[in-house]
Amino acid sequence: MEKLTIIKVGGKIVEEQLSLERLLNDFANIPGNKLLVHGGGRSATQIAAQLGIETKMVDGRRVTDAEMLKVVTMVYGGLVNKSIVAQLQARNINAMGLTGADLDIIRSHKRQPNPIDFGFVGDVDKVDGKRLAQLISTGIVPIMAPLTHDGEGNLLNTNADTIAGEVAKALTPYYNISLIFCFEKAGVMQDIDDEESVIPHINAADFNRLVDNGTIQGGMIPKIQNAIEAIDAGVKEVIITKATAIDSSRGTKITK
Amino acid sequence: MEKLTIIKVGGKIVEEQLSLERLLNDFANIPGNKLLVHGGGRSATQIAAQLGIETKMVDGRRVTDAEMLKVVTMVYGGLVNKSIVAQLQARNINAMGLTGADLDIIRSHKRQPNPIDFGFVGDVDKVDGKRLAQLISTGIVPIMAPLTHDGEGNLLNTNADTIAGEVAKALTPYYNISLIFCFEKAGVMQDIDDEESVIPHINAADFNRLVDNGTIQGGMIPKIQNAIEAIDAGVKEVIITKATAIDSSRGTKITK
Repeated sequence: MEKLTIIKVGGKIVEEQLSLERLLNDFANIPGNKLLVHGGGRSATQIAAQLGIETKMVDGRRVTDAEMLKVVTMVYGGLVNKSIVAQLQARNINAMGLTGADLDIIRSHKRQPNPIDFGFVGDVDKVDGKRLAQLISTGIVPIMAPLTHDGEGNLLNTNADTIAGEVAKALTPYYNISLIFCFEKAGVMQDIDDEESVIPHINAADFNRLVDNGTIQGGMIPKIQNAIEAIDAGVKEVIITKATAIDSSRGTKITK
Repeated sequence: MEKLTIIKVGGKIVEEQLSLERLLNDFANIPGNKLLVHGGGRSATQIAAQLGIETKMVDGRRVTDAEMLKVVTMVYGGLVNKSIVAQLQARNINAMGLTGADLDIIRSHKRQPNPIDFGFVGDVDKVDGKRLAQLISTGIVPIMAPLTHDGEGNLLNTNADTIAGEVAKALTPYYNISLIFCFEKAGVMQDIDDEESVIPHINAADFNRLVDNGTIQGGMIPKIQNAIEAIDAGVKEVIITKATAIDSSRGTKITK
């Protein structure tokens, strides 16, 4: 099987022109098949504020009412996605922007309103890995925005880490997948203030221990849970690393 | 050659939920290969106003400075495009949203600033008809937003009528094309106040006469010019008709 590199980048990196350009250069240089999943939360918050719409977060996740859904559809599906696509085309990458609604790539359902009503937020039901693999096999580089749809005409806001994990799992029958979560830190660190303290490998047992002793906290918990699920589902490697130097030999590797 | 129906719909129709649903029902019912080009100017003007950005129009065309480019990228590429895609997926149409940047489908260059500086507005250089035809041949229904790119990383605002005409021309080697411009009126009318006065056929000679005697005015002039160019380039038929009843036997047919 051929290799496929899936890169997930968060909002902070794609929303500053300098870090975005560095990321896009790195991404363009990755050999072979590739796919990018991006966030855009900071821009969404900023545009929402300019439109007089208040951003509410619960457990680090956005509450998406009808007005906020319009904002994230504009920002994730339009502003961030199309800027990345145009800038990758300038680097001779045959980029194509996708939301989960396009080609029915990702179906989801609206999350139950209990215990917390997140509004128009989608939990993924199904990724059409076959269709994605067909696109990739013709040289297309999918650029995926964190939006899905319910098949009844509604778009739903969906966590970008989740999309990256689900897309990786759905593509395991077709590719040897390297899934790389890029963010601001060098990896999962023993000491959050020491960039040299990156933990090189974490497996499921390590993860439980590191959560119990408080080394892994907050938003890193679902990120690593996603990673472990992906490995269990057949993704070859998952790496959590710094966006400014995508390099699969660095960062934290999640293993079985 | 197989038939391909290209529908162009303006902002007013896609921006009101009732007229949009009617349009999408009609579009979903068109048999065979199809492609939709949409506008979105009214939403762009509205969102821009909410963001405190003034809309300037010259000769019915939007002046697009850097801030307005962000707005149209959000509104055309995100809000309008993805809403249409999700609602067509709910009608079992395998819709895929595209701007000209995606897959490098439409290259353009920034219009000269003289005599009027329209800002980030693109004049089309090249449509990749071969790539579009490949997508269509696999059952994909492209939904095209009025944005193009310059190949150097910049998106450009591009008139949707122009995109429809250029896409139609680029696809003539692959399909027998019926290009239908949908808008609020029943067609080109002898008397603008009389919906019964639709002119059933217009050729290039008729067009010149009707412009000279003032029957065809304003925004209808470039629309029909586009249509005549498309016919000259091998598009099989061009029809200007009412969006609420897409029917190629009605409206005004532009002929050689």
